[in-house]
Amino acid sequence: MEISARNKMNGKITDIKTGGVMASVKIQVEEPGEITALITKESVEKLGLKEGDDATAIIKSTEIIVGKE
Amino acid sequence: MEISARNKMNGKITDIKTGGVMASVKIQVEEPGEITALITKESVEKLGLKEGDDATAIIKSTEIIVGKE
Amino acid sequence: MEISARNKMNGKITDIKTGGVMASVKIQVEEPGEITALITKESVEKLGLKEGDDATAIIKSTEIIVGKE
Amino acid sequence: MEISARNKMNGKITDIKTGGVMASVKIQVEEPGEITALITKESVEKLGLKEGDDATAIIKSTEIIVGKE
Amino acid sequence: MEISARNKMNGKITDIKTGGVMASVKIQVEEPGEITALITKESVEKLGLKEGDDATAIIKSTEIIVGKE
Amino acid sequence: MEISARNKMNGKITDIKTGGVMASVKIQVEEPGEITALITKESVEKLGLKEGDDATAIIKSTEIIVGKE
Repeated sequence: MEISARNKMNGKITDIKTGGVMASVKIQVEEPGEITALITKESVEKLGLKEGDDATAIIKSTEIIVGKE
Repeated sequence: MEISARNKMNGKITDIKTGGVMASVKIQVEEPGEITALITKESVEKLGLKEGDDATAIIKSTEIIVGKE
Repeated sequence: MEISARNKMNGKITDIKTGGVMASVKIQVEEPGEITALITKESVEKLGLKEGDDATAIIKSTEIIVGKE
Repeated sequence: MEISARNKMNGKITDIKTGGVMASVKIQVEEPGEITALITKESVEKLGLKEGDDATAIIKSTEIIVGKE
Repeated sequence: MEISARNKMNGKITDIKTGGVMASVKIQVEEPGEITALITKESVEKLGLKEGDDATAIIKSTEIIVGKE
Repeated sequence: MEISARNKMNGKITDIKTGGVMASVKIQVEEPGEITALITKESVEKLGLKEGDDATAIIKSTEIIVGKE
């Protein structure tokens, strides 16, 4: 199945910790890739973002889905 | 300010497209790093995830925040 | 109160598991309904989505709010 | 690829609208299924949720990924 | 309907901008209230968070639902 | 680092509870501020939202990032 989520990063699981109902899974990403972020136009203007700028993609852990072949 | 989001990937902005209120920002990540995903314990069991497994981190574009120094 | 979230599916709670601060709640949805997904235009094009296509709505558990009358 | 997202609902695309960078995709879900929601233990207690209760799963459109075989 | 989302802040709509399929809605919150954030235990430790600390709640616009009586 | 998330509310941590891998952090917000929500244009129309209306910003706890200077 092909899915609409734009960002897929392959790597190796390095650590798994489990709690009551949740689990934390760490993945060492092996190849850097391209990330697509959707933000408000207002943010692009207020941060003065331009092509060529250095930037950081910031993602909360609860927003990451794990896939396994 | 230090923030609780576990995942920060540095790179360079390669493309910006704007719509009415939204914008799509593409970032070429330069250094692979470690990703922390929070999923259900049930998913760890059902996918049979183990340390050392190959895995893919999947992230919807709307969940990505962009930071700029 | 009327809320902007487009997707509301009624059903019956079948299971509740609690951890330290989180809880997993399973709901058996009784009537199929219509789901509205907001994805990138790029994804519509790359997946070649068209009206009439079979498709699957995929949702991470952390993104689901539970309501009770 | 098997993915950790617990909720997958099959159906047929009934409508697609596109904007500048976003698109709204409506899917008529055909078979009701089971939904897993992850909420705070505090919410289970404050709403007095119990197995057998009627409940509604509420999901914002931006949180839904679309998959296509 | 009572809902499990812990954070509800009342205010007045000050601005609405619409795009193709999305809309940006600004709300001037009138009474400060208490916010509940769910983060990783690892983040609490790494940021050294303690009761009494000054802290900032950071929320991406796509994660906010609007309710109207 | 400046970040694209539009909503930042300053306050004081009043309570921290930890579970297996998650933690719940309560912040008493001190100054009311302006919130930007991104919802579907369809929701603006269906709720009949207008500037000047009373409205409530609703946010699931898992969507909140905590920052500390």
